[in-house]
Amino acid sequence: MRVSIIRKAHFNACHRLHINEWSDEKNKTVFGLCNSPNFHGHNYDLEVKLTGEINPITGYLMDLKDLKEIIKEEIEDRFDHKNLNLDTEEFKSLNPTTENFAYIIYELLRARIDDNIDIKIRIWETARNGVEYPAD
Amino acid sequence: MRVSIIRKAHFNACHRLHINEWSDEKNKTVFGLCNSPNFHGHNYDLEVKLTGEINPITGYLMDLKDLKEIIKEEIEDRFDHKNLNLDTEEFKSLNPTTENFAYIIYELLRARIDDNIDIKIRIWETARNGVEYPAD
Amino acid sequence: MRVSIIRKAHFNACHRLHINEWSDEKNKTVFGLCNSPNFHGHNYDLEVKLTGEINPITGYLMDLKDLKEIIKEEIEDRFDHKNLNLDTEEFKSLNPTTENFAYIIYELLRARIDDNIDIKIRIWETARNGVEYPAD
Amino acid sequence: MRVSIIRKAHFNACHRLHINEWSDEKNKTVFGLCNSPNFHGHNYDLEVKLTGEINPITGYLMDLKDLKEIIKEEIEDRFDHKNLNLDTEEFKSLNPTTENFAYIIYELLRARIDDNIDIKIRIWETARNGVEYPAD
Amino acid sequence: MRVSIIRKAHFNACHRLHINEWSDEKNKTVFGLCNSPNFHGHNYDLEVKLTGEINPITGYLMDLKDLKEIIKEEIEDRFDHKNLNLDTEEFKSLNPTTENFAYIIYELLRARIDDNIDIKIRIWETARNGVEYPAD
Amino acid sequence: MRVSIIRKAHFNACHRLHINEWSDEKNKTVFGLCNSPNFHGHNYDLEVKLTGEINPITGYLMDLKDLKEIIKEEIEDRFDHKNLNLDTEEFKSLNPTTENFAYIIYELLRARIDDNIDIKIRIWETARNGVEYPAD
Repeated sequence: MRVSIIRKAHFNACHRLHINEWSDEKNKTVFGLCNSPNFHGHNYDLEVKLTGEINPITGYLMDLKDLKEIIKEEIEDRFDHKNLNLDTEEFKSLNPTTENFAYIIYELLRARIDDNIDIKIRIWETARNGVEYPAD
Repeated sequence: MRVSIIRKAHFNACHRLHINEWSDEKNKTVFGLCNSPNFHGHNYDLEVKLTGEINPITGYLMDLKDLKEIIKEEIEDRFDHKNLNLDTEEFKSLNPTTENFAYIIYELLRARIDDNIDIKIRIWETARNGVEYPAD
Repeated sequence: MRVSIIRKAHFNACHRLHINEWSDEKNKTVFGLCNSPNFHGHNYDLEVKLTGEINPITGYLMDLKDLKEIIKEEIEDRFDHKNLNLDTEEFKSLNPTTENFAYIIYELLRARIDDNIDIKIRIWETARNGVEYPAD
Repeated sequence: MRVSIIRKAHFNACHRLHINEWSDEKNKTVFGLCNSPNFHGHNYDLEVKLTGEINPITGYLMDLKDLKEIIKEEIEDRFDHKNLNLDTEEFKSLNPTTENFAYIIYELLRARIDDNIDIKIRIWETARNGVEYPAD
Repeated sequence: MRVSIIRKAHFNACHRLHINEWSDEKNKTVFGLCNSPNFHGHNYDLEVKLTGEINPITGYLMDLKDLKEIIKEEIEDRFDHKNLNLDTEEFKSLNPTTENFAYIIYELLRARIDDNIDIKIRIWETARNGVEYPAD
Repeated sequence: MRVSIIRKAHFNACHRLHINEWSDEKNKTVFGLCNSPNFHGHNYDLEVKLTGEINPITGYLMDLKDLKEIIKEEIEDRFDHKNLNLDTEEFKSLNPTTENFAYIIYELLRARIDDNIDIKIRIWETARNGVEYPAD
């Protein structure tokens, strides 16, 4: 009996869309305001969806308190109140678009969650702009 | 032309996560605060998604007023303002986790909805914890 | 690396569910309040989800500013502050149910979005009633 | 011990901002899209706040079920799925702005609620535009 | 320069509206479903608003982290995952209506917040029913 | 007949709480994560409430389209996608707490809105932390 559980989390960070190999002019043309030189920021809303078999005894897929703790350790402690470009290893050479952020979060959680359980990330950068990874 | 319609509903109930075959100590260790002896409660937010063919004349998959009425009869009248452990047949011997609650709601609606229409349940126990059944 | 991006938009319109080939009595029986003769209205909440490959250089599936602009040109400029039955070509002979509206929006965006990218529409007519097209 | 209780309700309607004494041109200049000739519509979100003394025995200011019923009878039954300009007495000669709508709703409820209880109306025409009456 | 800060918190509990001095029949007549004998529950959404002078050096009225901690100690640790009627001192002989709950929370916080700072409580029992104490 | 209108707006920015006259150590002790050296960011949710007399002819306090435009010119164009500490005149020597931000926004709008109309600002830095200025 396969089921999905969803846990939401919230954190904030600042960033700047910028490709080091490009000129400032090209960066500005492609990324517009998101390339603003002194950074800008967001409250990120994260949804982590896990899919697998219900444990027939406990009635849990996985204890949501454990998932909450893993999200705190791997995602919130790493990215909350940080500058994604300057303060993190993950975006040293990777442009911190929401697409890439969803991929990075997926990989960080994948390493901590049982292989029998599928993971899907949905992250909202603003109330109107969101990303899902991997795609359905 | 396959389409999905979604109807949201809201009700509240109280419950306690507890497995009768286990000792009180083991229940407390596994379920923590959710095992609190005198129960605790939630406002449950329910989303029922139905998938099937649009009727080419009416432009409806199904009249949402009819779906609203079925949800009221089968789910709200049964569980609203109730103690899931003490007041319901469904959880007499089934631990009322959100995973199991999604499964129960699915089965209750499955018996009332035309077989040509697929059903998916999403239920939120709190603003941050949700479950989908069946999984994608 | 396939990913989905989601953009939300908002607009309002009025409409009336009515099938020209039916008698007034039958329309009233089937559509109830939604057949109210002088129309009624909604704030529509639209979610457009695009799925495709991340561009490995920019880290974008597609610039969300471009998607925002396409939604404005094709959907908001066409339907915002309009009477769907009287003011639009699309619903001259098509009943403006939410199911049909999702289909129309899909077709209008499909003509503007690159073929390598899949499109899914979710539209909410009220806070409790929504539709997805195409179905998963 | 003075306390306030708040009840939210939702309904939808269509309308058109238009002053009969003005020319069509002046109406269009002043009200823009909101003057669209065939009407447009909204999902209205209503908050009714009542202020008065707690009943020391029941612990209620007023039973919220009673307030819910009064709002249904006076507001929802009157305005839901209606054309404010064509279907209602209240806006026959009054421009249905959100400011005027808040005032009308206040007066309708004032006639039904005990004089010892103060009433304040907040109504949202869209997610971004709201009105309060009377002002603090 | 007087300013207000608002902090939101969330917790859940179960309760039953019941006046010990009344007969079961009278309790059922007055409180209806809310008198359900085996309790029911809610996710309570709490807003604590503090009003006072901005500190001209720090630019803070009060550190929101301190307010968050006080709310946790006084309100969440006391009421979260509890049965208000059976597990708490505060509602041993007080009917746990939302009005009374707002008053109790006010008194508990009043004892911990500097006297120069005014306090207002807003608490939502469901998405549609809320209470403010003290009244404006 | 006094009424209030409310307009919501959204923008994002990054900042760092820091008092130049203090040592780095004292800044870190007082402001914690909010003093993070390379900045962090937020999606700010702004509510502007105007209070005054309804125009008896138009039924408007003020055209919300005009208020929307003033908010865009004075607030969004100035602060959206900016670093409050480095990119703005207003916070060159003022700590960008939410309290101070509410005050600055009030002053910027006060200079543009008719003196007969009162202004109140509510701004949310995160979903749980907000500020109102001036206080009730």
